[in-house]
Amino acid sequence: MATLSQLINAKAIAIAKLAVRATTTAGSGHPTSALSLAHLVATLMYHTMRWRPEQPRDPGADRLVLSEGHAVPIIYAACADLGVTFYPHGQAKRMTVDDLMTLREIGSPIDGHPNPALGFPFFDAATGSLGQGLSVAGGLGCAARIDGVDKVVYCIIGDGESREGQIWEAMDFIRDQRLSNVVAVFNCNGLGQSDYVSPEQDWTHLQHKAEAFGWTTVVIDGHDPEVILAALGRRAGLAKEGQALAIIARTVKGWGVPAIQGTGHHGTPVPKDQLDSVLGALDQRAKELGVAAISQEEMARGLSIAQPTATPAAPPPARPPAGFMAAVAGNTKAAKSVEEKKALSPRRAYGLALKALGAANPLIVALDGDVKNSTYAEDFAKAYPERYFEGRIAEQNMVSVGAGLAAAGKIAFVSTFGRFMERAFDEIEMAVIGGLPIKLVGTHVGVTLAADGPSQMGLADVGFMRALAHTDDYHGNPAMTVLTPSDPVSAYNLVLAMAEHPSACYLRAVRGDLPILYRESERFPFGGYKVVRRAESDRPAIVLAGTGYLVHSCLKAAEALQPLGIAATVIDAYALPLDAAPVLRLARSAGASILTVEDSYVGGIGSEIAEAAAASGDGPRVRMLAVRNIPKSGRTAEDVLAYVHISVADIVQAVKTLTRQRAPDQVGSQLL
Amino acid sequence: MATLSQLINAKAIAIAKLAVRATTTAGSGHPTSALSLAHLVATLMYHTMRWRPEQPRDPGADRLVLSEGHAVPIIYAACADLGVTFYPHGQAKRMTVDDLMTLREIGSPIDGHPNPALGFPFFDAATGSLGQGLSVAGGLGCAARIDGVDKVVYCIIGDGESREGQIWEAMDFIRDQRLSNVVAVFNCNGLGQSDYVSPEQDWTHLQHKAEAFGWTTVVIDGHDPEVILAALGRRAGLAKEGQALAIIARTVKGWGVPAIQGTGHHGTPVPKDQLDSVLGALDQRAKELGVAAISQEEMARGLSIAQPTATPAAPPPARPPAGFMAAVAGNTKAAKSVEEKKALSPRRAYGLALKALGAANPLIVALDGDVKNSTYAEDFAKAYPERYFEGRIAEQNMVSVGAGLAAAGKIAFVSTFGRFMERAFDEIEMAVIGGLPIKLVGTHVGVTLAADGPSQMGLADVGFMRALAHTDDYHGNPAMTVLTPSDPVSAYNLVLAMAEHPSACYLRAVRGDLPILYRESERFPFGGYKVVRRAESDRPAIVLAGTGYLVHSCLKAAEALQPLGIAATVIDAYALPLDAAPVLRLARSAGASILTVEDSYVGGIGSEIAEAAAASGDGPRVRMLAVRNIPKSGRTAEDVLAYVHISVADIVQAVKTLTRQRAPDQVGSQLL
Repeated sequence: MATLSQLINAKAIAIAKLAVRATTTAGSGHPTSALSLAHLVATLMYHTMRWRPEQPRDPGADRLVLSEGHAVPIIYAACADLGVTFYPHGQAKRMTVDDLMTLREIGSPIDGHPNPALGFPFFDAATGSLGQGLSVAGGLGCAARIDGVDKVVYCIIGDGESREGQIWEAMDFIRDQRLSNVVAVFNCNGLGQSDYVSPEQDWTHLQHKAEAFGWTTVVIDGHDPEVILAALGRRAGLAKEGQALAIIARTVKGWGVPAIQGTGHHGTPVPKDQLDSVLGALDQRAKELGVAAISQEEMARGLSIAQPTATPAAPPPARPPAGFMAAVAGNTKAAKSVEEKKALSPRRAYGLALKALGAANPLIVALDGDVKNSTYAEDFAKAYPERYFEGRIAEQNMVSVGAGLAAAGKIAFVSTFGRFMERAFDEIEMAVIGGLPIKLVGTHVGVTLAADGPSQMGLADVGFMRALAHTDDYHGNPAMTVLTPSDPVSAYNLVLAMAEHPSACYLRAVRGDLPILYRESERFPFGGYKVVRRAESDRPAIVLAGTGYLVHSCLKAAEALQPLGIAATVIDAYALPLDAAPVLRLARSAGASILTVEDSYVGGIGSEIAEAAAASGDGPRVRMLAVRNIPKSGRTAEDVLAYVHISVADIVQAVKTLTRQRAPDQVGSQLL
Repeated sequence: MATLSQLINAKAIAIAKLAVRATTTAGSGHPTSALSLAHLVATLMYHTMRWRPEQPRDPGADRLVLSEGHAVPIIYAACADLGVTFYPHGQAKRMTVDDLMTLREIGSPIDGHPNPALGFPFFDAATGSLGQGLSVAGGLGCAARIDGVDKVVYCIIGDGESREGQIWEAMDFIRDQRLSNVVAVFNCNGLGQSDYVSPEQDWTHLQHKAEAFGWTTVVIDGHDPEVILAALGRRAGLAKEGQALAIIARTVKGWGVPAIQGTGHHGTPVPKDQLDSVLGALDQRAKELGVAAISQEEMARGLSIAQPTATPAAPPPARPPAGFMAAVAGNTKAAKSVEEKKALSPRRAYGLALKALGAANPLIVALDGDVKNSTYAEDFAKAYPERYFEGRIAEQNMVSVGAGLAAAGKIAFVSTFGRFMERAFDEIEMAVIGGLPIKLVGTHVGVTLAADGPSQMGLADVGFMRALAHTDDYHGNPAMTVLTPSDPVSAYNLVLAMAEHPSACYLRAVRGDLPILYRESERFPFGGYKVVRRAESDRPAIVLAGTGYLVHSCLKAAEALQPLGIAATVIDAYALPLDAAPVLRLARSAGASILTVEDSYVGGIGSEIAEAAAASGDGPRVRMLAVRNIPKSGRTAEDVLAYVHISVADIVQAVKTLTRQRAPDQVGSQLL
């Protein structure tokens, strides 16, 4: 009768062989990284984790996040061996070894790095860009706490990967939140891609660091099932003390196969003609460990996967959230601003909407990065502290925690200054790749922030986000919908719409007050725009397409153009992507040009409308006003708008130049 | 006769008062953060640092990097008091208190956050987006080591800020590099913006963390000059042992003024009507410390700033670097590939060019993030190890170290996968804001990477970088020039051109081999393009504008179109920004449409040409092929190109659709 350790040893070698075969078949991949995890993965997936292969996304099950995503063949191998349910071509199927051999094929969900969105729900989030998994695990841990589920989230992190600062942001976050349901497993195989890891990433340093970050550590031989089991066995006791466990596992990259150990073997599959020899070396290791005679059947009998303890209760259904005016009435400062100034900042509207959503829907959760008193996420934080997670000054971790919460079915709003969202663009893209509908809110965007200067102004955020906005996600929606409200009502209603939307969104809110333009009942469909001023003439000379703060500048410019005989229509282009066809028709029917006006660097609404116009092949002419020099501090918004040449006067001047360029037959009636 | 400590106490209070006055005059800013640094800054700037206020960028002088940039008023105050040379309106001037009171004015270089590029060379780099300063200090420290200059770089970091993972990346980097010329000063005032810092950021945890990261720590009262002096005095001895010093300074946010201490005072200037009372409180502190009677003159006499030890020798002048063929000849693998396949990967060309530059110019330095064997930065690393800095898997730190090296006058090339450049977009933008001409090289871009999947493919990089490409920097150049070579010769020559260019650049290189298209003598001016295939007809039906790998796909498509009677011109649009006018003329003169083809998400060459066409008001029609769905792994580049609909067949189909849409009088002669 084989012992548990022997069974795990035998299983580790069995899945190691499968992982090597799969990468050789694929002709690429990371077998040596996979081998370093053979025993850890075997112990977790065949013994310690409480889960069901037939239902890998069971909401009560323990989770495994592979932060070092390139090592995934070892997990795929275990999944194939266990017959995990996955979804090739959208249909549920129990995975086989044949399926495993489709690794990295264009038609296979067995992708090069973990990605649940392709049909592999064993994973919660896409990983592969390093350093993000522990944050995702933190998000899953937060969700489990909200749901009152006794679930453990295991996260495997490479030692080279632990150089990424985000890992330490996550270590801080998990400790700060006292999440003892997350276990960090550092896979210390001593090798990065191009070289040995630095001394700073060796197991001794990692242990000292993890302890300095407040975790309890255990150093183990990551290829000895007995000590792995003992280390994992410490978790429950530590959890009772509110302590998180970090296992520092010393491993060998290319375990079992001396020929592929050391430097120079990262990301290199075993050539076909060496495959037998490598598999033979692993068989030899099985002999040396005295487990060569254990049959698959004996392993299957002896290794019993623990079942999830319980399925969490379904949350109460969501109710319709309060409307804008009711929300305003419930907030003294907001009510005063609306009453006296007929204006409110869109970030204040975000705070009101988030709180209203919180009251209406228990799935709503929120994160902010130490600026909740500026983004007004604090309204929610105070009302629903158990669903608010303070991210502190660590935006990368915050976004990935949000992704983890989204993976667990929460509707996660993540706020900070739009400028600091840039810090997490990689994490945002990974969330999108993984099909996780995070709701991002960037405040203080654009140059009207003024006094604080360019290090605080969201300006290049639009170009990046728009790249995702023109990419379809797995729902066929834009992978990112970018929303720039021009007034507090639209801000409020757009936040409510974000919560309903099945895909990722990014709301951009300026710091300052915006005059109210819309009635509470106005709806703002994604992809749409609003005509906020119709030209006096049936044939406007110009269509001004503004976003956010600059919609109001466009309205002022239109008023200034009227005495000059230049009729202007103004639209509020609040959404990217934008269905530009009607905007083009609006201009084309009048022979008008379009001037886009935005207080970001290029790549936003201007590109959106210009691309549509150019694709149509018959105009209209589209010119873009955007920020085209690096801003600086100014004491007023107007100072900085003038500095970057998008003041009302600049808009007026641009229109005058543009209308003068019209074809002669169209110009006559419009100019002075 | 006042003691040194008394003099520093007196000076700290004097500059504290100036800082408070300046922020009140500006109507915004962070006086409480400034007050927490009064004694540390006074000790450094009036005593410990070896520098000359009249020449703040003296290459031999010690440096001060304020990572928590919002606390800058205390440094501005000292600079005004010391008459630091700065450059309002481009003219050198010794700073006065009147100048200080222009803080945050649109016409003043005394910006809201540190920014040398506006004319304030006391600072080396722009800071303000948190967590980046220690990396910049690391870069300055690396440069000092190359130059053999005995210079110390002090870096002040907020405790709340220390939650940013990049701080810990920098702690690792500085330790890994054994840079003992960098001193980290953690300003532990216990408060972030919205709340107290978490327990994980308190001074005890910071001390334990810094020690676990291999630094020697000293915990001090940051308002006691005697202990500050003693702590700073330990540096020289530790440096002899190769040890870096971290000073954990316990401070008080709003020091000296109880009324503005605690939460709720971050980023809040003292109202004008409370200014006298706040200044009075600081005077009262001077009395309590027994330094109220020390006159400005006595301080000036007693506090003597140490002079820089020596000016570093000027480096030998640069020679012209070797040409492409000579570089190829010096590398066996490259020579074989060129000889046998008439092809070479552009990343290999980067490696060759970087090494050639290294031989020719001692100012060239390089960094890479544990993928130097993939980017071929290793060619340089092996040849010039003293000028190569291994960044490990920590891209944020790597880019900011590069910025620091650039600030010290080095020509810093920074390479990793283009996908992982996204991790450092914030840092890239900060470098650009600070006017630092970093040279970025992103390899493995686009979907042709294939097998590794979307977590490794640079796709959204273009949209972000193009936002900067249409923003003028302080030279009047694009703040970022984006270069996508289509062959190894252009890759090589573009890298040489990047080294010459005074502004920031980003080279995008695919993983695979590219056939040679150009002769070694071909030049690739920024903003230009190349016609790589002229249509058989004088009146091409289509202009195909491709980038990188897809230039070759466009060439194949053009060949496939020829038998269909569709004449195609193909251009290699290697640069963003692009002078699109001649491209439009090329199409317009023939009545042709333009099809742009790129293997990134939208926001690149397609937007570039479409925007120009739309602005011209008279076409031509421009359609864009780009990646519009999230890719996945595929075993071949062709598999993935087809999956995202930019295969040669897709190009051909798009052209057929597009040419069918031409105006009837133009179509006749072209279609079947």
